Amino acid sequence: MSTVIRGGTIVTASDIVRADVLIEDGIVTSIAANLPAAGHDVVDATGCYLFPGGIDPHTHLDMPFGGTVTADDFRTGTIAAAFGGTTTVIDFALHAKGQSLHDAVRIWHGKAEGKAAVDYSFHVMIGDLREDVMREIPDVVEREGVSSFKVFMAYKGTFQVDDETLFRTLRMAADVGALVQVHAENGDVIDVLVREALAKGQIEPRYHALTRPPEAEGEATARAIRLAEIAKAPLYVVHVTCAQAADAISDARKRGLPIYGETCPQYLVCDIGDYDRPGFEGAKYVMSPPLREKWHQDVLWGKLANLELQAFGSDQCSFNFKGQKELGLHNFSLIPNGAPTIEDRMAILYHFGVNEGRIGLNKFVALTSTNVAKLFGLFPRKGTIAVGSDADIVIWDPEVERTITAETHHMNVDYNPFEGMRVKGKPRKVFLRGHLIVDGDSFLGEPGMGSFLRAGRFTPVNL
Amino acid sequence: MSTVIRGGTIVTASDIVRADVLIEDGIVTSIAANLPAAGHDVVDATGCYLFPGGIDPHTHLDMPFGGTVTADDFRTGTIAAAFGGTTTVIDFALHAKGQSLHDAVRIWHGKAEGKAAVDYSFHVMIGDLREDVMREIPDVVEREGVSSFKVFMAYKGTFQVDDETLFRTLRMAADVGALVQVHAENGDVIDVLVREALAKGQIEPRYHALTRPPEAEGEATARAIRLAEIAKAPLYVVHVTCAQAADAISDARKRGLPIYGETCPQYLVCDIGDYDRPGFEGAKYVMSPPLREKWHQDVLWGKLANLELQAFGSDQCSFNFKGQKELGLHNFSLIPNGAPTIEDRMAILYHFGVNEGRIGLNKFVALTSTNVAKLFGLFPRKGTIAVGSDADIVIWDPEVERTITAETHHMNVDYNPFEGMRVKGKPRKVFLRGHLIVDGDSFLGEPGMGSFLRAGRFTPVNL
Amino acid sequence: MSTVIRGGTIVTASDIVRADVLIEDGIVTSIAANLPAAGHDVVDATGCYLFPGGIDPHTHLDMPFGGTVTADDFRTGTIAAAFGGTTTVIDFALHAKGQSLHDAVRIWHGKAEGKAAVDYSFHVMIGDLREDVMREIPDVVEREGVSSFKVFMAYKGTFQVDDETLFRTLRMAADVGALVQVHAENGDVIDVLVREALAKGQIEPRYHALTRPPEAEGEATARAIRLAEIAKAPLYVVHVTCAQAADAISDARKRGLPIYGETCPQYLVCDIGDYDRPGFEGAKYVMSPPLREKWHQDVLWGKLANLELQAFGSDQCSFNFKGQKELGLHNFSLIPNGAPTIEDRMAILYHFGVNEGRIGLNKFVALTSTNVAKLFGLFPRKGTIAVGSDADIVIWDPEVERTITAETHHMNVDYNPFEGMRVKGKPRKVFLRGHLIVDGDSFLGEPGMGSFLRAGRFTPVNL
Amino acid sequence: MSTVIRGGTIVTASDIVRADVLIEDGIVTSIAANLPAAGHDVVDATGCYLFPGGIDPHTHLDMPFGGTVTADDFRTGTIAAAFGGTTTVIDFALHAKGQSLHDAVRIWHGKAEGKAAVDYSFHVMIGDLREDVMREIPDVVEREGVSSFKVFMAYKGTFQVDDETLFRTLRMAADVGALVQVHAENGDVIDVLVREALAKGQIEPRYHALTRPPEAEGEATARAIRLAEIAKAPLYVVHVTCAQAADAISDARKRGLPIYGETCPQYLVCDIGDYDRPGFEGAKYVMSPPLREKWHQDVLWGKLANLELQAFGSDQCSFNFKGQKELGLHNFSLIPNGAPTIEDRMAILYHFGVNEGRIGLNKFVALTSTNVAKLFGLFPRKGTIAVGSDADIVIWDPEVERTITAETHHMNVDYNPFEGMRVKGKPRKVFLRGHLIVDGDSFLGEPGMGSFLRAGRFTPVNL
Repeated sequence: MSTVIRGGTIVTASDIVRADVLIEDGIVTSIAANLPAAGHDVVDATGCYLFPGGIDPHTHLDMPFGGTVTADDFRTGTIAAAFGGTTTVIDFALHAKGQSLHDAVRIWHGKAEGKAAVDYSFHVMIGDLREDVMREIPDVVEREGVSSFKVFMAYKGTFQVDDETLFRTLRMAADVGALVQVHAENGDVIDVLVREALAKGQIEPRYHALTRPPEAEGEATARAIRLAEIAKAPLYVVHVTCAQAADAISDARKRGLPIYGETCPQYLVCDIGDYDRPGFEGAKYVMSPPLREKWHQDVLWGKLANLELQAFGSDQCSFNFKGQKELGLHNFSLIPNGAPTIEDRMAILYHFGVNEGRIGLNKFVALTSTNVAKLFGLFPRKGTIAVGSDADIVIWDPEVERTITAETHHMNVDYNPFEGMRVKGKPRKVFLRGHLIVDGDSFLGEPGMGSFLRAGRFTPVNL
Repeated sequence: MSTVIRGGTIVTASDIVRADVLIEDGIVTSIAANLPAAGHDVVDATGCYLFPGGIDPHTHLDMPFGGTVTADDFRTGTIAAAFGGTTTVIDFALHAKGQSLHDAVRIWHGKAEGKAAVDYSFHVMIGDLREDVMREIPDVVEREGVSSFKVFMAYKGTFQVDDETLFRTLRMAADVGALVQVHAENGDVIDVLVREALAKGQIEPRYHALTRPPEAEGEATARAIRLAEIAKAPLYVVHVTCAQAADAISDARKRGLPIYGETCPQYLVCDIGDYDRPGFEGAKYVMSPPLREKWHQDVLWGKLANLELQAFGSDQCSFNFKGQKELGLHNFSLIPNGAPTIEDRMAILYHFGVNEGRIGLNKFVALTSTNVAKLFGLFPRKGTIAVGSDADIVIWDPEVERTITAETHHMNVDYNPFEGMRVKGKPRKVFLRGHLIVDGDSFLGEPGMGSFLRAGRFTPVNL
Repeated sequence: MSTVIRGGTIVTASDIVRADVLIEDGIVTSIAANLPAAGHDVVDATGCYLFPGGIDPHTHLDMPFGGTVTADDFRTGTIAAAFGGTTTVIDFALHAKGQSLHDAVRIWHGKAEGKAAVDYSFHVMIGDLREDVMREIPDVVEREGVSSFKVFMAYKGTFQVDDETLFRTLRMAADVGALVQVHAENGDVIDVLVREALAKGQIEPRYHALTRPPEAEGEATARAIRLAEIAKAPLYVVHVTCAQAADAISDARKRGLPIYGETCPQYLVCDIGDYDRPGFEGAKYVMSPPLREKWHQDVLWGKLANLELQAFGSDQCSFNFKGQKELGLHNFSLIPNGAPTIEDRMAILYHFGVNEGRIGLNKFVALTSTNVAKLFGLFPRKGTIAVGSDADIVIWDPEVERTITAETHHMNVDYNPFEGMRVKGKPRKVFLRGHLIVDGDSFLGEPGMGSFLRAGRFTPVNL
Repeated sequence: MSTVIRGGTIVTASDIVRADVLIEDGIVTSIAANLPAAGHDVVDATGCYLFPGGIDPHTHLDMPFGGTVTADDFRTGTIAAAFGGTTTVIDFALHAKGQSLHDAVRIWHGKAEGKAAVDYSFHVMIGDLREDVMREIPDVVEREGVSSFKVFMAYKGTFQVDDETLFRTLRMAADVGALVQVHAENGDVIDVLVREALAKGQIEPRYHALTRPPEAEGEATARAIRLAEIAKAPLYVVHVTCAQAADAISDARKRGLPIYGETCPQYLVCDIGDYDRPGFEGAKYVMSPPLREKWHQDVLWGKLANLELQAFGSDQCSFNFKGQKELGLHNFSLIPNGAPTIEDRMAILYHFGVNEGRIGLNKFVALTSTNVAKLFGLFPRKGTIAVGSDADIVIWDPEVERTITAETHHMNVDYNPFEGMRVKGKPRKVFLRGHLIVDGDSFLGEPGMGSFLRAGRFTPVNL
């Protein structure tokens, strides 16, 4: 099977090239001025960009949380991802109390296999950082092909670890070439504030935001950075939402430390005002960290433009408004945290970033794909359109306009946090390893087509 | 009883005034151009400065630590203080596991009464922050006249509290007008590093410093500040030693927060190189936080000159080299922490600060006395030479040179960390509430003369 | 002649003391608990603060400007100053093209003598920095008692000097103990912007602000600081209005440089919106630098609270709205620059600063008096209430409320920029060297009572 | 003519790709996994990197300076460049007093034509910024294909312009899509310091550095940035040497401004100590700005690693030690400024950057080629290895070690500032538009092969 994509403009993290692409056996084998059509399927990409397939570094599919489970599993979640231009997801394998890391990974393989419509890799979200769990890490890196580990500084009583554990994990990671990710919020402070709020009868969704102030995120981010500095370890801060945290990352990078940060579409275009939507609508935006005051958006855009934040994830974690979000109708702290964002991640960044002049095309590709691949050991197999790389290619039509709405989205959830936003720019076709999996509004792939990707060890990258 | 001090130059935190001072019943009742001698004792202060008696905000007298007890108690410690020009000490009442705060204060009264040769006040160093202990705080402020509480972010397994406890203490303190002090080092990180070092056989005093890196102090300082910011509470950071911590305080103050910092003489004139003294001599400098690389000294001096650090304490905590420091001969972590500094606190700041042109006379007074009184609810009774204030006055002879040495010091300890340093400037006479307690090399006061000072509630101060 | 002021509360830059004050021969000779009344005039100050007489470091009295002359001369200006609580003004002697500095000073003496109702000192505002003028500087310092020199980085074609001149002046000043003041705006940029605006027909007062952007002030401030740094000279930046300039000063001070900054009442309570007042009213606020966007006010208050700006001047420079400001009715660049602020300087800082909780009483005194005296060689004769100092004392009634209005002010000008503002706190009585010159609404002094004050050489001050 | 380069590893600013390259008619027409050899010249690049030909944004060839002329002209200079891996130079056309810009460009064409062995483009170095010259700018951009203009803030009396001129040039440039470059040193300050030094008999080369302090560079950099900010213009700062200047650029970029900075090899590996070489050897390092204290090198490396400096130029400006540098034997200010660096620019960055782990391969390409092309309107024709781009390709052998020495270098000058440095990594072959111009130690091209490149207008780039 071979395909020639003709007439498009290839965009990588540094180049913009008008050229044809030849795909053979799922791999890009030639990029050339005028490739002969003979013997190949020919796809016309005139007027379109060819982007490397998006890599979403932050998804939670089929994940149990607070007595329920996310609305999207690997089937619906990855199909939605594909429609949005994402051809690889890195999902968080949940590691439960008492469990081994190997078991966590094994269970997650079970969730993904036969269902995933795009390629996937795993982080492990460590839920119980026992001594024996820490000792498993080298083996997980070596044998499971999982080299990034998320540690929680929040969710007191469940996921939260103490500084000793975080520090020892960082030291271990530095030794074995793994990358530690942190959810950086000060869980102790939040726990007190939540209890205070509830005691005062403050039960509405807005209190979710008011009990998780940006200073608590800034604090934890700065702390994790200092611990990484002492441990001589790299660090990746997930879902950065505010100036306090983003500045801590910039300061560290200025000192030459290998510290990386990710932000997400919801923090760029939604804000704390969304919690005051009528009725219980605010619950749709309950996620952690929460949405912030609007001025933080400008800070985040600035950081993306200068690559002071290096990666762009969705933090997809979908719960239906009906029946799931409603669990917290009388107590904001019981609202399942998260939002459905996997499908529109790239469109939001493209429209509000590229179209509105905040970032260039190369940066768009770097943020949505290349940098993610480099950070998580998938490059150059993934993350670029280059000879020898997987032919994960999005033919992106920059002229198509659409309105984001739950009525037409492909996620298995009853609302969309970006409902009603008008965006320009949309995948026309999406290829996964040379297979056309999305063609306009049709899904041509099939669940189970997605392969597991073994992640390489972390190597320090100048991003 | 009345006294006139004639011919001196009064220095306050803002003024330098050539005038006479009349003391009646222990109080300054007049400052005037030429006071008549008749009916008064007359003291000549020609050629000397009159400083308000020093207030040492940070002493540990008669304190049990690591199976031993400090070499100086309230008798020897306060006599030594007086010789150095200090007429008030604020000592840390140790609060032990299971104890009530009231009991801690009561026990400390027992240690001071009948022994203290200068006035004294207490902070409580909270050792066991239980729910009932937190509930005691308002009453301790109201009835005991103790309004500052020290919380430890280090000493894992003994004093260290978690962030929840620190945060709730800050909130409580904000409510009742108390000031929280923090020992800011990340105890979790230090604990891991100490264990790693010992496991590698690194037992010498130098490893005390290497296992407590400045980043661990910077981290904890920044964290405590963020918690105070969220709690809307003031905060006082004791014994700041390094750029990382001092910059965190400056940044907070730039944001308008009521954050205060203290440094100590040892951090200005000793450095990490002292741990490499021959034999076990380095143990004399084992204190926490440890001495730092020399360049931090310049940073600290700059912060003092701009009052970005506002107070100057001794952190007096004396242990004999023989018999006490030696407990850690084969394991640096068993060396009792602390050094004898109460006597030379003012001389060190005067000589290396004022004489060497780093700070002015007004700043010297602000740092050693006025600001301390303002921060800890003792102003204007203490901290200045003004009508209505206690006549705690040091007649300071700027011309006397001496060499600091354990051979002549008045502390009850067998070494002096500043041994051999040559300094110019020394108290000629010291008055406590109008009583001449030090006259040259003679102590004229007596143990028990010192009175307990009830501290007022904390009020925000622009320092 | 002797006076006792009883029952008041003396405020200095560091103390707040309930005591009586004895004044003999114009000097404070005693501060005591209860001074006998016998043989003295007795003044009751119960319920009032005693502040050291205000020192205004920045006035332009009887100054020719743009073909007209300021509405207030030394008589009306200093009487108005006295009513506001100011007992010393430091006026800018204008040095004209072709003139010697000595002549400039001589002419200014002519303007002040016989007219000044409060004490006065001079800066020289250098208008023609020729070689011979530079060589005069040491002699002016030595013999005239004038030790501060203002250099302009703006007003292209008239006052503006190039960097060579500024740099050489700084070097000269460092040698002879003088302090260079700069008006820091980039005159070249402003000149281009003004011409562009006029060419487009933009003639209204608002264009005064738009053609003098804060970046032009920030730039010049940073430049002057760097030049001072290279020249190893101290520097005083007059009328700081914006974050860009104030931050440059903070940064320099953080590096330990002797850089000082002044702001003025109009920049704290008026803003760029005032230029849009109906009709030509905006012209009342035409001054240089111009009023800024409102958010800069918070920055300036923060800098005052931390003493990152050290002095508070009026930049009094009054022109009548009728007949003078109107010169620029059809061209904003012809509006005489300046506003009448000498009278309300202290009331504005007191009300919006102290009453509204932004600064404390000690800082109020430091900013309006003590620091100014220290910076300009007048301390301790001026700037404090202390034995041996001039008895320049304001009895300040903190309870009196009033509305600022041109109808009742004492300046010889037909408008007040603070018109209609309600402020609490007002001088009840004002003493100049022991003479009661203001008593409520009556002026009891007389023109000519003011003495010239020889300024000492600049000595580096830790402020 | 067509060529296949096989077996190499292509490096772009974002990718590292093992692939073959087909060159037809001087253009890259295909990048593919295994290109057939038939019908093409075949070049083996096994074990080598393929870098896009270096673009040197900063050369002075055949330039008159201080009564002499640079030792290298377009022939020798560009041959040396080619040996170093550079296939495009952007030379500064000198614009003399009284001249038109068009004439300056015309004269420079005359110098380059028939001589240049690599492609070239021009900046104009404006020497006489008259009104009519400013009005020429749009036409020069439009018709000459020259869109960057260098303005001098130093060299008082010759090139230096005042701020008005700089500001107006920035505004003009913003209007017409040109990029202003500044030589940022405060010429006024330097002029005074030079005269002071000479007056004191300080004539040795070291005084060149001491009279051009880093603060003077920091000042001018910050000033130019503020002017650009007000003018809403982009700005490119040439030859950044010190923390003061580099930090000013970082701060501006943090505020989102399109400010760019370049540094040069000599500032990374030489330092102020080189001026103290025996005899008159220090003269070899006389360039402006001068070499700095060694600690600045770390700052510059950090800025390169984070792309806070975006471009890497040589500032090639060669004068023979004998006969030329010696003009300043008795007066450092007469030493012709500049050094021969065009040939070793890439080797220095590669060895001390890539080999020593300070920057990655992608950053190396970005700095030496891609970013330069993007900034100066040459991208994507130049600056990358991509389909459709000029086949300017360096086959870089990372294993070859050599010692830099004037004995073997190809520049027409009698010394090398990097003499004796041992570096690893060297071009094996260099292609200019598909022509093999360097093969090992042989030059196979010929003078005159280089073409003039019309630069496009500047468009804002997120670098």
